[in-house]
Amino acid sequence: MLVIAERINSSREKIAEAMLASDRAFIQQEAMAQVAAGAHYVDVNAGALEGRETDRLKWAVDAVQEVIDAPLCIDSPDPHVIRDILPMVRVQPVMINSISLEPARLERILPLVAEYGTKVIGLCQSEDAMADTADAKVELAGRLVEKVAAAGIPIENLYIDPLVYPLGTGTASALATLDAIERIMREYPGVHTTCGLTNVSYGLPNRRLINRTFLVACVMRGLDSAIMDPTDKHLYGALKASMMLAGRDDFCMEYIRAFRAGRME
Amino acid sequence: MLVIAERINSSREKIAEAMLASDRAFIQQEAMAQVAAGAHYVDVNAGALEGRETDRLKWAVDAVQEVIDAPLCIDSPDPHVIRDILPMVRVQPVMINSISLEPARLERILPLVAEYGTKVIGLCQSEDAMADTADAKVELAGRLVEKVAAAGIPIENLYIDPLVYPLGTGTASALATLDAIERIMREYPGVHTTCGLTNVSYGLPNRRLINRTFLVACVMRGLDSAIMDPTDKHLYGALKASMMLAGRDDFCMEYIRAFRAGRME
Repeated sequence: MLVIAERINSSREKIAEAMLASDRAFIQQEAMAQVAAGAHYVDVNAGALEGRETDRLKWAVDAVQEVIDAPLCIDSPDPHVIRDILPMVRVQPVMINSISLEPARLERILPLVAEYGTKVIGLCQSEDAMADTADAKVELAGRLVEKVAAAGIPIENLYIDPLVYPLGTGTASALATLDAIERIMREYPGVHTTCGLTNVSYGLPNRRLINRTFLVACVMRGLDSAIMDPTDKHLYGALKASMMLAGRDDFCMEYIRAFRAGRME
Repeated sequence: MLVIAERINSSREKIAEAMLASDRAFIQQEAMAQVAAGAHYVDVNAGALEGRETDRLKWAVDAVQEVIDAPLCIDSPDPHVIRDILPMVRVQPVMINSISLEPARLERILPLVAEYGTKVIGLCQSEDAMADTADAKVELAGRLVEKVAAAGIPIENLYIDPLVYPLGTGTASALATLDAIERIMREYPGVHTTCGLTNVSYGLPNRRLINRTFLVACVMRGLDSAIMDPTDKHLYGALKASMMLAGRDDFCMEYIRAFRAGRME
């Protein structure tokens, strides 16, 4: 289970402030804390800083890779930004967050994925209707798999995020994503799935409870990567406990190790 | 989702002490707190008080039904005890916890279930080998369904507990129970499933985390009743969030109501 740590995101106010103020210690602390908590990849996003995204992302990547050896997940919808950042990234393989089926983005990012041998997150999102059923998500996943294969990228480097829509807009939304996770992994052997968790709880109270409960449900259906905050000990505990319940933790050793390291509540 | 509240159990030291000391206020407080927290049935067990089970169970049932209107779950493996208690129980329908395929117990308890029109928990347990695979659990469930039907008891009154064995003794144990829950409910329409959660975590650290994560996994597979402590706000939160994620909470109203009532964390 690949943990992609989400905290260094400019949509969070404190991160945006630190990026604008070049507060190197703050960003580095965020990176180190996430790795210490169990992150395999550290996502870095400066997309909310209009007009300064490339500059601030370069600065943040430089700061982060000075203190951690974990690989980074370069988080930008902009192919130009990704192209400018990739040559300076030290630890391989990088992950790119993300492509969708939007042609302009897809056609410019896929060659970079192929050239640099990166991993890439693919969103089940097109320019047409919202994919809010399992069928629609699986269909878009199939198109992502085709595009990636056509670009000469191994399917193992593709992490498909079926997306989840808020439960408040339809109580079948989580089930659609869960079904899609299982079907995508069965129909496209070798492909990975991932999921941003937080959208599911939009508009509801006690969002962290819903998000971690959703993570458990996803893990039980085969999800093998998640975009999450590993420093949230309740969330990390839900991850480790669900992996164990799903029979994906031999001799319960990962769970016991995480407990001993004080990583979960 | 039927919540069977488990706290009034003589295997808990404070309960045993209160039962032996006839501490009516303590037992009544336990009953009221569980109903306030969301219990639909209140389990009452005096089985650990050797030689005094019938006497203390009568006392406890009398104490409890003085302060709550929720129905009780009479928890004893002993047919004589159940026979002595049933006439004094006020709120219908009572639930009996439990039968298994052990003939002596089965043949003496089923007539009482039929006569009093009670609900009954049936354990997937025989005198033969331990049912630790989904196939074995489903096979035993089928035999329970047959026995209950032969006694003229409606299948809707049967709550099958497939049992779960400790993860520490085999990492496939939770999966076997989860598969069994789904298959039992599909193969025997109208039957209910229930589950005691705590056995799954035996011998592992942070048991409450494992138990509530297991509850989420069970709910996602269709479990429609659980033997649990509703006053554990993390556990109750996991229940309500998973019901919502499973599409079993129209307009998220049950979740929102539980949040407003301060029942979950």
